Amino acid sequence: MSYDKIMLGHGSGGRMMRELIEKHFIPVFGSGYGLGSEDSAVIPAPEGTRVALTTDSYVVHPIFFPGGNIGDLSVNGTVNDLSMSGATPLYITTGFIIEEGFLLSDLGLVIASMKKAADEARVKIVAGDTKVVDRGKADGIFINTAGFGILPEWVNVSPRNIRPGDVIIVSGTIGDHGMAVMSKREGLGFESEIFSDSAPLNTLVRDMLSVCPEIRAFRDPTRGGLASTLIEFAEESGVCILINEKALPVTSAVRGACELLGLDPLYVANEGKLAAAVPPDKADIVLDAMRKNPYGKGAVIIGEVTLSPKGKVLMKTHIGGTRIVDMLAGEQLPRIC
Amino acid sequence: MSYDKIMLGHGSGGRMMRELIEKHFIPVFGSGYGLGSEDSAVIPAPEGTRVALTTDSYVVHPIFFPGGNIGDLSVNGTVNDLSMSGATPLYITTGFIIEEGFLLSDLGLVIASMKKAADEARVKIVAGDTKVVDRGKADGIFINTAGFGILPEWVNVSPRNIRPGDVIIVSGTIGDHGMAVMSKREGLGFESEIFSDSAPLNTLVRDMLSVCPEIRAFRDPTRGGLASTLIEFAEESGVCILINEKALPVTSAVRGACELLGLDPLYVANEGKLAAAVPPDKADIVLDAMRKNPYGKGAVIIGEVTLSPKGKVLMKTHIGGTRIVDMLAGEQLPRIC
Repeated sequence: MSYDKIMLGHGSGGRMMRELIEKHFIPVFGSGYGLGSEDSAVIPAPEGTRVALTTDSYVVHPIFFPGGNIGDLSVNGTVNDLSMSGATPLYITTGFIIEEGFLLSDLGLVIASMKKAADEARVKIVAGDTKVVDRGKADGIFINTAGFGILPEWVNVSPRNIRPGDVIIVSGTIGDHGMAVMSKREGLGFESEIFSDSAPLNTLVRDMLSVCPEIRAFRDPTRGGLASTLIEFAEESGVCILINEKALPVTSAVRGACELLGLDPLYVANEGKLAAAVPPDKADIVLDAMRKNPYGKGAVIIGEVTLSPKGKVLMKTHIGGTRIVDMLAGEQLPRIC
Repeated sequence: MSYDKIMLGHGSGGRMMRELIEKHFIPVFGSGYGLGSEDSAVIPAPEGTRVALTTDSYVVHPIFFPGGNIGDLSVNGTVNDLSMSGATPLYITTGFIIEEGFLLSDLGLVIASMKKAADEARVKIVAGDTKVVDRGKADGIFINTAGFGILPEWVNVSPRNIRPGDVIIVSGTIGDHGMAVMSKREGLGFESEIFSDSAPLNTLVRDMLSVCPEIRAFRDPTRGGLASTLIEFAEESGVCILINEKALPVTSAVRGACELLGLDPLYVANEGKLAAAVPPDKADIVLDAMRKNPYGKGAVIIGEVTLSPKGKVLMKTHIGGTRIVDMLAGEQLPRIC
């Protein structure tokens, strides 16, 4: 499709966003400008070390939701982006854009959450910037975080390494973050409250790599959900990913909320989960290592990598058929992070 | 003063912003959280190298103004923050927050300006993120840039190094950026158009350090203007800075516009100028080197460092008196960068 204006879908993590990046950013900035192929920019540094850089802005609405707020989200999200490239996150910078009239008490809560999240992930917040815009020109608070990490020499993770036979593991239930934000935003009173899974995943990645340095790829399924992550895996490696609907871990609360709202948990954002492609003979030891980490207790195999159809994600459904899992064009849940 | 809400002045670069940082950020993040003492976070990296990290969000209104736009501003600003710490800027990350309905053609212009600025400064834009918020929840486009640079081992610049006897040099006319934005925003038709000085200063810093590695400190006087920069110099080094009003380079167009609007060019933002404290015996060779660089042609000495009153900036005025140059409490020109 062709547009002359920015639409909500252009920030969706789906096709429209990809089109925006491919048509407007890459031609100018070059192909290095992260087209979702890697969450962090990995760049050569002096002395043979490799550093990882990443950035994300957070515009989640509402800023406070069950299980977290925009503050811990902005730190965990950037910690996770670095972690997915195999890097050890070290430093974070923060940029605040705040609307005139925003409560300082709320800002205090947000900052405290950032600090707590940074401490847990053992990253330092080393630089910051604050801008204030006039009332009505922003929506409370927006936060940008950029992250810096070091990539150990022996680490080589990338969706391009995925090959037929690999198994696909997710670290726990999917859809929690997105449904927690939606339930708060829409004022929905579900039977059991749904909590965001906002969490740092650097120790989980470390634990996984320590038992299996040959892990092919990691990705945290945020905007666009697990479906978008798996499609990126399949497209970048030129393989097929076949998942089993029955194996997908979804809490009954999230499943119920999704049914009520007509949403598919496969497309709902997570903020404390990862998907990984792992050599089949190492799947058990990787799962063992994951389940010993507080953020990998719910780790399960959800599928496998096959030869064809290349670049596609297929799902064996509950009723026994097989369907293609496609990327959404636009925005299922705007402003979820 | 005590507040329970964010006010425009909290993003001003003046006292209110400093109070905000001292009261709300530093107690949580620790004293490393850039209190204007350094523009970049300089952190130890493996192998003995030091890397510099910095971040800034840009909310300038209007986004297009004579001499530049939010795009080149966002790249030059971060290049300059790294440069002021003596670092060689290498990589930039970008975070876009865009309002639904923003014209893609305008986005294209902004992106092109960023690329052009990055090329001129020889930095690479290596990562990016795009968020879209609903109409009325932002103001066109906000851009965050974070920067990464390497700090050569022999470089040691910091306002704490400033000592009595040093001379204060500025690289050219002051107030151009702020008045260019104001004239566009207010629709003022001045006799001669005023252009922003938006420019990368990394080569200028390099040229200065190459003839005088003992330069004490650099700073780019953005929000809060040259006055705020000099007050930071004085406070951090515990010296007095005595400047000469007659020596301040201001174009007649900027002077006239300031008079019309009741503004003082000392407090108006610059985006392509620097102030430096230089050992007195090296002032001439530093000035020579600066004037050979396209961004230092207008370099002049504007004052000197004296013993007391400690932490103060004094100005010999046109009429022969001496007055204290104080920091503004709040916002003279909101959303200037």
